[in-house]
Amino acid sequence: MEIEEPWQVDDVHERVGKRLNEFLTVQRRPLASISPDVADLVDTVSHFVSGGKRLRAVFLYWGWRAAGGPDCEPIITAAAAMEMLQACALIHDDVMDRSDVRRGAPSVHRQFQAKHDDGSWSGSGADFGTGAAILVGDLSLTWADMLLLESDLSHTALARGKAVFDEMRCELMAGQYLDILEQARSTPGAESAMRVITYKSAKYTIERPLQLGAALAGGNPDVIKLLQTYGIALGQAFQLRDDLLGVFGDSATTGKPAGDDLLQGKRTVLVAQTLDRANSQQQTEFEAGFGKITANSDMVATMTGIVEATGARAHVEEQIDELTSVALSAAADPLLDATSSAVLDSLVSAATRRKY
Amino acid sequence: MEIEEPWQVDDVHERVGKRLNEFLTVQRRPLASISPDVADLVDTVSHFVSGGKRLRAVFLYWGWRAAGGPDCEPIITAAAAMEMLQACALIHDDVMDRSDVRRGAPSVHRQFQAKHDDGSWSGSGADFGTGAAILVGDLSLTWADMLLLESDLSHTALARGKAVFDEMRCELMAGQYLDILEQARSTPGAESAMRVITYKSAKYTIERPLQLGAALAGGNPDVIKLLQTYGIALGQAFQLRDDLLGVFGDSATTGKPAGDDLLQGKRTVLVAQTLDRANSQQQTEFEAGFGKITANSDMVATMTGIVEATGARAHVEEQIDELTSVALSAAADPLLDATSSAVLDSLVSAATRRKY
Repeated sequence: MEIEEPWQVDDVHERVGKRLNEFLTVQRRPLASISPDVADLVDTVSHFVSGGKRLRAVFLYWGWRAAGGPDCEPIITAAAAMEMLQACALIHDDVMDRSDVRRGAPSVHRQFQAKHDDGSWSGSGADFGTGAAILVGDLSLTWADMLLLESDLSHTALARGKAVFDEMRCELMAGQYLDILEQARSTPGAESAMRVITYKSAKYTIERPLQLGAALAGGNPDVIKLLQTYGIALGQAFQLRDDLLGVFGDSATTGKPAGDDLLQGKRTVLVAQTLDRANSQQQTEFEAGFGKITANSDMVATMTGIVEATGARAHVEEQIDELTSVALSAAADPLLDATSSAVLDSLVSAATRRKY
Repeated sequence: MEIEEPWQVDDVHERVGKRLNEFLTVQRRPLASISPDVADLVDTVSHFVSGGKRLRAVFLYWGWRAAGGPDCEPIITAAAAMEMLQACALIHDDVMDRSDVRRGAPSVHRQFQAKHDDGSWSGSGADFGTGAAILVGDLSLTWADMLLLESDLSHTALARGKAVFDEMRCELMAGQYLDILEQARSTPGAESAMRVITYKSAKYTIERPLQLGAALAGGNPDVIKLLQTYGIALGQAFQLRDDLLGVFGDSATTGKPAGDDLLQGKRTVLVAQTLDRANSQQQTEFEAGFGKITANSDMVATMTGIVEATGARAHVEEQIDELTSVALSAAADPLLDATSSAVLDSLVSAATRRKY
């Protein structure tokens, strides 16, 4: 059975959105009473978390369900914490990458920069935007752990879950640091690129949320091991798809410019594979445009052509297929109940065949 | 009885330092196993928290003791959480203010920028420094709540304390936002300056840590009210002293350039008082140098002379005296035990007569 919109099963996507709304409405009040200006920070986060695929929340929920947890409101609150953590990660990441756009709208630091420009305030609008975005991210990080701990799960469950959550947050930041470090050092090679995406994205997006859900439920060790196999494989496949979308994605659906990762000079696994396979002429042509934010569409076309011609694209598609098989057979294991099995199966497609 | 070094009573300063060290040693291991490079982030925080007055930790501890809590290790761990939160606040604040120096050493973003420059890495060293410092701050914020919750206090105590801690973190970020907003808007007037310092500094440095300690101890409401009176008055006095140090402080002891707040264009209460009292010639002369990071020492001397000549300095000293009296009489209340009373009394001097 293939479920078309697995994030809708048990209304997880919608209920998480509703919970985030309720939570932020409560948080808004004391902050607005300090000053109406401060309410802008809350409203920015409200708007930010109204978008997104909520994959991490969905994986947390199905980690819980697969490990035997019942559908209930407390787990929705815990799932909402994932989206708040993700808000912090993206908002701070956009500052670090100087990204202009996120989820089809101006990134948070650009929104505050625009406020500065509109008001003709003194000082640098860019600095004001950066400062505000750092604080909005800090608030989101704070709210993430508040949500988890306010989830009305038992103390024992929360103690098990908090340990995973803490590890997850630290790994995420470690992965983001490795990312900017490897970009700065221009470290070549698929191995270092894979290490970055393992921590920055693969574990953080799928393995850890699943594991956190399962830990909260206190599932049996065999199920937890199974979810881990599924999560690691799918997490890597998810990220490799991200690499492909960053180069070949349609800007109308990704909300980012065509070839964005190439313009940004992101040393993804796909790029590492390309350079490993390129002959010297291809290497020269590729490096001429790579990381040049001002590269024109011809240069982008040349680079994407090389990714294609070297066979790097096909190779990454193969890797995705292999990882997908591992995840699918884990999802089919009879240890899992039928619903969890079907949803986890469908989430494999959702995470690897997505268009944005 | 005046205690000369109140932060040393019960060895709080030293024990908090030891606890921070132990905690970070444990945190270092899994992160170093991802990559030795990531260990740099932990080492940066270790070095950062080895300095500082640890005032917030000391106030948390004495809030706990004054409310009847016994000396014990769990409360030292909770107190250590205050220093980790402060690390996040300062590291992110320095990014926002583009400060070069903190605690007599290069600020965290400058340290990472130097690493980038030393390695002749690609891209902007300043951007790399900013990115790394955002992540180091995020880790510190994460570690702050881990420390509080790992403190081995009872669930009931932690539930009471967590609520205060959450409010405190949100207020801090709100205060920091108001700060950058008021600077950008160049909002004049002592009232808005006072609102900024109330949230960004006064509540956060003294009132909230005291209240958090007392909440963890579950003290009686009269004692908590007393601590609040003490905390608000002393917090404001503390911040006004900060304003004076930012203009008149000796750079050898503050670790910041002479007249730093004037060069930075910080609209402190002291500056607001100065402008309120200045005649038009003084205003013109003051505004000529204010916020000009390149102002020479003559311009700084002119500005500090105006702060003095308008009577703003004397007025702020008077305000400090009044607030100090309020705090001292709260500390002398017979509701408090003799030791807490003596320490809180001495902390008034420490916070208001300090030289850095």
